[in-house]
Amino acid sequence: MTETFASGDRVACTIGDTELSGTYITDRDGMRVVKLDSGYNIGVDPSRVAFLERTSGGDQPAVEVDQDPALPELAIISTGGTIASRIDYRTGAVTSQFTAADILRAIPGLAEIARFRTQILATILSENMTPALWQQLARAVHDAIADGAAGVIVTHGTDTMSYSAAALAFMLQSPVPVIFVGSQRSADRPSSDNVMNGICAAATAVSELGEVAVVMHESPSDDRCAIHRATRVRKLHTSRRDAFRSVESAPIGYVEYPARTVTLEPDAVQRGTRPLILDDRLEPRCGLVQFYPGMDPVLFDAFSGYSGLVVAGTGLGHVSSACIERLGALVDAGTVVVMTSQCLYGRVCDRVYDTGRDLLTAGVIEGATMLPEVALVKLMCVLGRTRDRDEVQRLMQTDLAGEVLGRSPHGL
Amino acid sequence: MTETFASGDRVACTIGDTELSGTYITDRDGMRVVKLDSGYNIGVDPSRVAFLERTSGGDQPAVEVDQDPALPELAIISTGGTIASRIDYRTGAVTSQFTAADILRAIPGLAEIARFRTQILATILSENMTPALWQQLARAVHDAIADGAAGVIVTHGTDTMSYSAAALAFMLQSPVPVIFVGSQRSADRPSSDNVMNGICAAATAVSELGEVAVVMHESPSDDRCAIHRATRVRKLHTSRRDAFRSVESAPIGYVEYPARTVTLEPDAVQRGTRPLILDDRLEPRCGLVQFYPGMDPVLFDAFSGYSGLVVAGTGLGHVSSACIERLGALVDAGTVVVMTSQCLYGRVCDRVYDTGRDLLTAGVIEGATMLPEVALVKLMCVLGRTRDRDEVQRLMQTDLAGEVLGRSPHGL
Repeated sequence: MTETFASGDRVACTIGDTELSGTYITDRDGMRVVKLDSGYNIGVDPSRVAFLERTSGGDQPAVEVDQDPALPELAIISTGGTIASRIDYRTGAVTSQFTAADILRAIPGLAEIARFRTQILATILSENMTPALWQQLARAVHDAIADGAAGVIVTHGTDTMSYSAAALAFMLQSPVPVIFVGSQRSADRPSSDNVMNGICAAATAVSELGEVAVVMHESPSDDRCAIHRATRVRKLHTSRRDAFRSVESAPIGYVEYPARTVTLEPDAVQRGTRPLILDDRLEPRCGLVQFYPGMDPVLFDAFSGYSGLVVAGTGLGHVSSACIERLGALVDAGTVVVMTSQCLYGRVCDRVYDTGRDLLTAGVIEGATMLPEVALVKLMCVLGRTRDRDEVQRLMQTDLAGEVLGRSPHGL
Repeated sequence: MTETFASGDRVACTIGDTELSGTYITDRDGMRVVKLDSGYNIGVDPSRVAFLERTSGGDQPAVEVDQDPALPELAIISTGGTIASRIDYRTGAVTSQFTAADILRAIPGLAEIARFRTQILATILSENMTPALWQQLARAVHDAIADGAAGVIVTHGTDTMSYSAAALAFMLQSPVPVIFVGSQRSADRPSSDNVMNGICAAATAVSELGEVAVVMHESPSDDRCAIHRATRVRKLHTSRRDAFRSVESAPIGYVEYPARTVTLEPDAVQRGTRPLILDDRLEPRCGLVQFYPGMDPVLFDAFSGYSGLVVAGTGLGHVSSACIERLGALVDAGTVVVMTSQCLYGRVCDRVYDTGRDLLTAGVIEGATMLPEVALVKLMCVLGRTRDRDEVQRLMQTDLAGEVLGRSPHGL
C-alpha cells in the first residue's frame, strides 16, 4: 500500500541501509520526488518513502503578528531572494514568492524587537537585479526614513546583495541603519540561516549605527552575525552560511545571537550624525571586465560607446601591453576606464612597473582599494553626477562611503 | 656643494623634519629622483640628498657560484618577474632583466641546496604571459626533467603565476617537483622576499613532492613558506608578501625558514609516483567573463566564434535571465560554456534555483569547485585534446590535477 502525500510533507527515504529525511515534492514517472535535507532532489520508489509529519506552508493558518506600540518602527523592504523563498513543489527548485509579511510570520522573534511596516519592491532572484531597481530601492528606503522609520531592513538575494548594498551606500546618506540581509539556505531546510540573520538584522536596524550595512552569519555557528560596511563586503563562498566577508578591513560591528547584543566598532558611523540625502542619479552604461593572460585586446571593443569601464587587472593593476593600447583608445573616445585588481585585497598602484606606467599615460584611473564590483557601482553613480573627466577621477579616488581606504604605513 | 651620485646609490633624503632612505635613480629638471624604500619615486632638491653607500648592481664584480657535485641537480627556468627584476634607473620603474645566473648570485644560499643549470625562457612582466609561452614552458620543464633534473624551479612574475602554474599542471605529469616561485618586492627593496622564497622553492624542489606547486611566503613573517597546489592557488593581495593563498583547500606543505625543513601534507603527490608525460596541446581561443547586475547580454556576442568561454557567475553559478539566452546561443553555435563562481570559494550548483536550471537546459557546464582562472586554463587544455562535447564536459567535471574537489558531507 502506498500513502498519499501532500507537497511539503516531511518524509523518510530508505536508500540501501541508510535512512535520509527530506521533503516530499511530487510523484513523477512512478517515483516519489523528494528534496533531501542536503538540498538534492532524488526519485525514490514509493515503497521506500515513509510519512513523517505534515508541515506544508500552503495549509498554514494565517498568524496574527502582534505589534508592540512601545517599540521603534522599522521598515522591511523585500526584493526577493532565498530569505523570502520557498520550494516550488512543481519543479523542486527554490523560487522567491514570499511577501514581507510572510517574513514576519516566518520569524516571530522580530516582533520583540520592533514594529514593522513592510513593502514588496520586487520578487526576483538577485541575479536579475538591475541598476534601475537599485534606484527604485534607494528611493523606497529614502521615503521610509523620511516617513519616520527608525531603520530599514532590505531583504535581498545573496548573489548580488553586495552590489546593491554598495549602490545604496553611494546613492543615499542615512541618519539611521539601512541593513541588507539574506539567507544562504532556504527556509525549508533545517540548516536555514534565515531566522538568525533576520533577528540580527532587526537588532542592527534599531541600534546606534548610521550607515548602510550587510548583516549575515559571521561563522558556521549560530552564535554571531557580522555587520559589514556596504562598500567593503563581498560574497566569498557559494554556499556557506558565513559566505560574506569584509575585504581588506574588519567588520564594523557584531550581533550576538540569541542575545541580540549589538557591538559597533569605533569606525562605524553613528546614528544621527549624517543628514538624509538621496542622490539617485546613475549612468548604467558601465561595464566590468577581468583581464587574463593572452586576452584578445579586441574584446575591449565590445565596450565602445560605454560611459565607463572597470578593469579587474592582475596584481597591482596590470593588463598586457597589447591591451593597453585598446584601453587608451577607449579613453580617447570618452570612456572612463578605472583599474582595480582581481586580487581583491590590497591597493592598486600603477606607478611601479612599466605596464602600469603605460596605463597611466593612456589615461586609466587607479582604483585605489576599491573592490572591482564596488568600483563598477561607484562609477555608475559618479558618472550620473558629472561627466567632467578630472572631477570623475577626483571622485573615484576620494572616499565617499568607506570604499577608498587610507594608506598603510608601508606606502602600499 | 652637491655630490655626484651613481644610479643605485643608497641615499638619505631630508623632507621637512623627516629623514627617509632610498635609492638614487637620476637627476631630472634640477632635482634628484629617488626611489624611496616605500616604493615611491620623488624629486628632491639636491641639497637635501645625502650619500649613504654604493650598492649598485651594475658595478658588482662577477661572483663565481661554486657547485657541489654531491648535491642533486635542479633546473631553474626564468620567465622574468620581480624575483628576476631590478630598477630601471632611467625611469625608476622595475623591469625584468636578470638572468637565471643572476638569481644564483643574488641568493648565494641556493648553492648549499643543489647544483643548478639555468635557462632563460623569457624576460617579461607576467601580465604579458601567453598560452603560447605556457606551451614553451611546459616543453622546457619536460626536457629538463627528461634530462635528469631532480626538480625544476620556474621563476615567474606573481601577477599571473597561478595561471601559468595551473597550465603546467594540466599539460605535464611530473615525477619530480615543478616549483613556481616569485617575489612581491623587488630585490633592491629591504623588505624583498626574493631570498627566502628562492631558498624555500629550492628546498621544495629537492623534496619528496611530485607535482606542480607554487611556493611563497605563508605570512608576513620571514619564517615559513607555504607550498600551494598549482590548481588551487590564487594571488589574493596586490602587495603583501603572503599574497598567495590556497583557495577552498589547505596548502599541500610548508617549508620552515631558515631551517629549510619541508613538511608535506598527506594529500601531496609523492616524488616518483607518476610518470613524466607531456601533453602540450592547447586551444587558446577561450575567454573568461565576470557577470554583474545589469550586464548587457550583447556583450557575450564578443565571444562569438570562441571555442570556449568560462563565466564567473554570481553565487552558486548564476547570470541574469536575459543573459542565459545569449549563452545558449553561444552553446548552440559550438562554444563550450563553463560556469564558475565569482565567489571563488565553494562549489557551483545550478540545480537549486530557476536561473541555474535554465542555464543547464541551455547547455552550460557546471564548473564544480574550479576557480574561474583555473577553469579557463583547463578549458584551453581540454579543448586542445578533444572537441567532442560530451567528452569535454566529462573532462571539465573530472579531477585532473586537484582542481575538482570532492563533495563535502553537506552535499554542496
